[in-house]
Amino acid sequence: MQVYKAPVEESLFLLKDLFGLEQLTSLPGYEEATEDLVEAILREGAKFCEEVLTPLNEPGDSKGCSRADNGSVLTPPGFKEAYQTYAQGGWMGLSGDVAYGGQGMPSTLSVIINEYMGSANLSFSMYSGLTQGAFAALSVHANDKIKARFLPKMMSGEWTGTMNLTEAHCGTDLGLLRTKAVPQDDGSYKITGTKIFISAGDHDMAENIIHLVLARIEGAPEGTKGISLFVVPKFIPDSDNNPDEANSLECGKIEEKMGIHGNATCVMNFDGATGWLVGAENQGLKAMFVMMNEARLGVAVQGLTQSEAAYQNARDYALDRLQGRALTGAKNPDGPADPLIVHPDVRRMLLTIRSFNEAARAFAIYTSIQSDIAHKSEDEKARQAAADKLALFTPVLKGVLTDCGFENAVLAQQVFGGHGFIEETGISQYVRDARITMIYEGANGIQALDLVGRKLMANGGRGIMGLFQELGGYIQERAEKEDLAPFILPLKRGAEDLQKATMWFGENALGNPDHAGAGSVDYMHLFGHVMLGYMWAQMAEIALTNKDENRKDFFETKLTLASFFMERVMPQTTMRLKRIQAGADVTMAMSAEAF
Amino acid sequence: MQVYKAPVEESLFLLKDLFGLEQLTSLPGYEEATEDLVEAILREGAKFCEEVLTPLNEPGDSKGCSRADNGSVLTPPGFKEAYQTYAQGGWMGLSGDVAYGGQGMPSTLSVIINEYMGSANLSFSMYSGLTQGAFAALSVHANDKIKARFLPKMMSGEWTGTMNLTEAHCGTDLGLLRTKAVPQDDGSYKITGTKIFISAGDHDMAENIIHLVLARIEGAPEGTKGISLFVVPKFIPDSDNNPDEANSLECGKIEEKMGIHGNATCVMNFDGATGWLVGAENQGLKAMFVMMNEARLGVAVQGLTQSEAAYQNARDYALDRLQGRALTGAKNPDGPADPLIVHPDVRRMLLTIRSFNEAARAFAIYTSIQSDIAHKSEDEKARQAAADKLALFTPVLKGVLTDCGFENAVLAQQVFGGHGFIEETGISQYVRDARITMIYEGANGIQALDLVGRKLMANGGRGIMGLFQELGGYIQERAEKEDLAPFILPLKRGAEDLQKATMWFGENALGNPDHAGAGSVDYMHLFGHVMLGYMWAQMAEIALTNKDENRKDFFETKLTLASFFMERVMPQTTMRLKRIQAGADVTMAMSAEAF
Repeated sequence: MQVYKAPVEESLFLLKDLFGLEQLTSLPGYEEATEDLVEAILREGAKFCEEVLTPLNEPGDSKGCSRADNGSVLTPPGFKEAYQTYAQGGWMGLSGDVAYGGQGMPSTLSVIINEYMGSANLSFSMYSGLTQGAFAALSVHANDKIKARFLPKMMSGEWTGTMNLTEAHCGTDLGLLRTKAVPQDDGSYKITGTKIFISAGDHDMAENIIHLVLARIEGAPEGTKGISLFVVPKFIPDSDNNPDEANSLECGKIEEKMGIHGNATCVMNFDGATGWLVGAENQGLKAMFVMMNEARLGVAVQGLTQSEAAYQNARDYALDRLQGRALTGAKNPDGPADPLIVHPDVRRMLLTIRSFNEAARAFAIYTSIQSDIAHKSEDEKARQAAADKLALFTPVLKGVLTDCGFENAVLAQQVFGGHGFIEETGISQYVRDARITMIYEGANGIQALDLVGRKLMANGGRGIMGLFQELGGYIQERAEKEDLAPFILPLKRGAEDLQKATMWFGENALGNPDHAGAGSVDYMHLFGHVMLGYMWAQMAEIALTNKDENRKDFFETKLTLASFFMERVMPQTTMRLKRIQAGADVTMAMSAEAF
Repeated sequence: MQVYKAPVEESLFLLKDLFGLEQLTSLPGYEEATEDLVEAILREGAKFCEEVLTPLNEPGDSKGCSRADNGSVLTPPGFKEAYQTYAQGGWMGLSGDVAYGGQGMPSTLSVIINEYMGSANLSFSMYSGLTQGAFAALSVHANDKIKARFLPKMMSGEWTGTMNLTEAHCGTDLGLLRTKAVPQDDGSYKITGTKIFISAGDHDMAENIIHLVLARIEGAPEGTKGISLFVVPKFIPDSDNNPDEANSLECGKIEEKMGIHGNATCVMNFDGATGWLVGAENQGLKAMFVMMNEARLGVAVQGLTQSEAAYQNARDYALDRLQGRALTGAKNPDGPADPLIVHPDVRRMLLTIRSFNEAARAFAIYTSIQSDIAHKSEDEKARQAAADKLALFTPVLKGVLTDCGFENAVLAQQVFGGHGFIEETGISQYVRDARITMIYEGANGIQALDLVGRKLMANGGRGIMGLFQELGGYIQERAEKEDLAPFILPLKRGAEDLQKATMWFGENALGNPDHAGAGSVDYMHLFGHVMLGYMWAQMAEIALTNKDENRKDFFETKLTLASFFMERVMPQTTMRLKRIQAGADVTMAMSAEAF
């Protein structure tokens, strides 16, 4: 049976001790996000996730989604009722615009709640996560009429949303898409085409589903410059904004997948469906990128969610399961064997996961706070600095948290031995569910290319240079502090490796972009691990200086985890630098036929 | 649709060019394994795998095993007929003793054929692989009467075999097992107990199933010293050795698993089933370990099989799928996009897999040849040297080939983007099937402990010291050869890292075995990658010196792959050394409650 307890203390430690909640409450509109309110929200959200969503996770996997006789999609047992609870609790619009019925809380709070939801039930959390992404895109790009028509019911959770991008012949390369939009006299468009891999494309949990669809207006230019964004509801709202006439669209098929069986991944057929343009003609990709950037932060956290849930389940197993004896003599001499936790290699696996999880959570929250600052601050310089970080960190977070999240779920599964491979224990589901996070919202190779090809150079490298300056200052200020040395020195080595790798690209990749491509994934992980090390150094410093006796154990564990991360995980930065410096010559040498 | 072509040219290159077939043909009994015969056997085996087994792989996954009305297990459609073809082709006894109807070929040939079978259909190959393991154990430990009764029909494939070790409360820790054996007046035993995770435990492909069962004879000592091995047939053979009376045993349940759905993983209930002792009383674990050591080499190769099959499918996808443009300008300007193979990161993934596969295959064959020498050579020194290598390499092979095999299958899946997550493309199956290889036949953490706790120190460290001597000599002899430097220098660094790690254990782990446990998995991978690098150096040397014009492309590709491996994969040895040298202090610091 799967277990999950939301890490509320961890979230509060990050918000209060590490980053300071005043970073959020000082922003206009967020004044009410006081410590007490934030804690109440997190505890309430945790309770919903633990009590309602976690028990539905395994049945969602084994039963999956199905089709009703009329072809509509049925979600797994219990999802519909849980969704009602979710919507009625006001969770969907937690960070939504108050003008449209949202609660106006910092988006960082939604990121935290979404973490809890994803750990409890990734498939379920996608229905709401996509809705939040969709109303974020409408908030930024749609005109007032469309906003008034769709936003309130999406923020209340009465309606859900989707993103319709991929077609059978184009995923990453959206310039190839063929779905077409024909303008009508009333200002609407008729949308025709087939989209695939549409998460939450159809279901029975809400009365309407609002599809955001990329399509090409008749006569538009080829490639990415001729793509527009449309809002296409499943049921066309009447003048009172109640779902009325069924639109000409349907789910053609539910895909059979490796995981996230509780979320319906649909082939969506649009057959002259009525839609309305969002934003300007032929500017659809730009609009979608806003949504995708936010979604990437969300998917990054999804990687963490599976790593966290897998950790908790493996830890319980390691504490309970009696097998073998400690190498240093029996630790449970009266029992038939010692618990797995006595074995150094079992600890290695658990500590690898946990030392990642806590730093990854910090890095995600840190980035999310940058997002709130970038959107809300009244100080232009602060906005720009935050936006620089957000842009730079987003692909790193997405790639590293999902790659490592999956690897960690696999490690956790290994703790279970043979019991990890049978579905009964529930651990395999975390592995299978985590796998998608490395792929969707831009496969991780694409994140790495976005990082080295776009984000590094943006604004003359302002973002990365700002980061090096910050890291350099942070490290230098602590150079003399002996008790911090075990954390600062490995971070320093990592930061130097990152700088060397960045310089190597600067010197080599301009002449031959393949040099950047061949090292891009290693660079993304090198970058990510330096950031995780940076998070650990800061957390260790708090643990060393905070003298709160009630939290002594909490801080001692933090120091152990920080030490483990520095000793065991950070050494990879030098390996990655070497791989990057190998360049692309050998990688590009073989002819296609020789593969 | 899944594709697979058996790498016959690769196998022949290893046997003929790299290791020399005379290593086998010079052994007594193997004189007939000539080049022509070996090539004919491999080509015939390849054909069977490609034409018969590959098409059954995906249906085996999606349909899985089921129960007939009488509770017996039905294999997926086509398995039964394919098994008839396999048995009639004489494949089961290819390396079996001629005295019992085997064909007496070197076991290395069976290892190669089993590789092809595993790539084509891992679930199917387990039915025969377990049978071969079972008759190998009987060959060594059973008395002549039992051999005469069971071996001929197992070698002919008329009967299959299983290994019954695990119980619900004990997997790794077999000392805890409770299945009991009560001696009967006629010399047989009544076996009672429940075994779990029994691969191929029941099925409809053969007329009888011969279970090898670990059990405790009434009154035997507790722990591992009171375990005996029994042969327990599904149907008790009559005096003509035909299956007769049904024994008191049954499959209680087929487990729901993450993968290998085509193989029935059974809960086996023995309810006073009739069995016969194999080997001496209370010596069962020793007998089983012989079987397990051979099985570990087999499972190591299974890791490679999924990596190879996944590579071939991902390569085809990368050549066919048009998406995006090369960073250096369009390579397919007349098409809508370039094939994926133009992208450096896609190449990185494919080259990572392939440069592993070819070296892993070499390492496996090399070890298998040691096994043949250790069993057959008339030269005692040669036998001992080969046995030392076999013992030392077996846990390394099992751990590294399966860990990397799984990682590679995941990389191959990544090449498919979103299409990798849906079952339709078939790539997910390789990932799910590969996952078990890291767990069964001793989870990889156990392999690592076996390596550092047992194999390193065996005979005063004779095995590892012999290897360092061999590696040192190999490297020194080539120190002046400039064209070999790109391969020899990285190997030298790796070998030095391995030596330092070994010394670190010598200096620290005797006083505190947790230091060995905490670094054991990193040590296993460090060891394995030095061996893979050693294989690549030798293959590169052949590629540089062989002037056969007809094989020019073949050797050029070998050099590219060797270079890639040296540049991109070998740098991990230093990272692993650093982790090992971090020791166990931090790993063991946290209390169990703090996890």
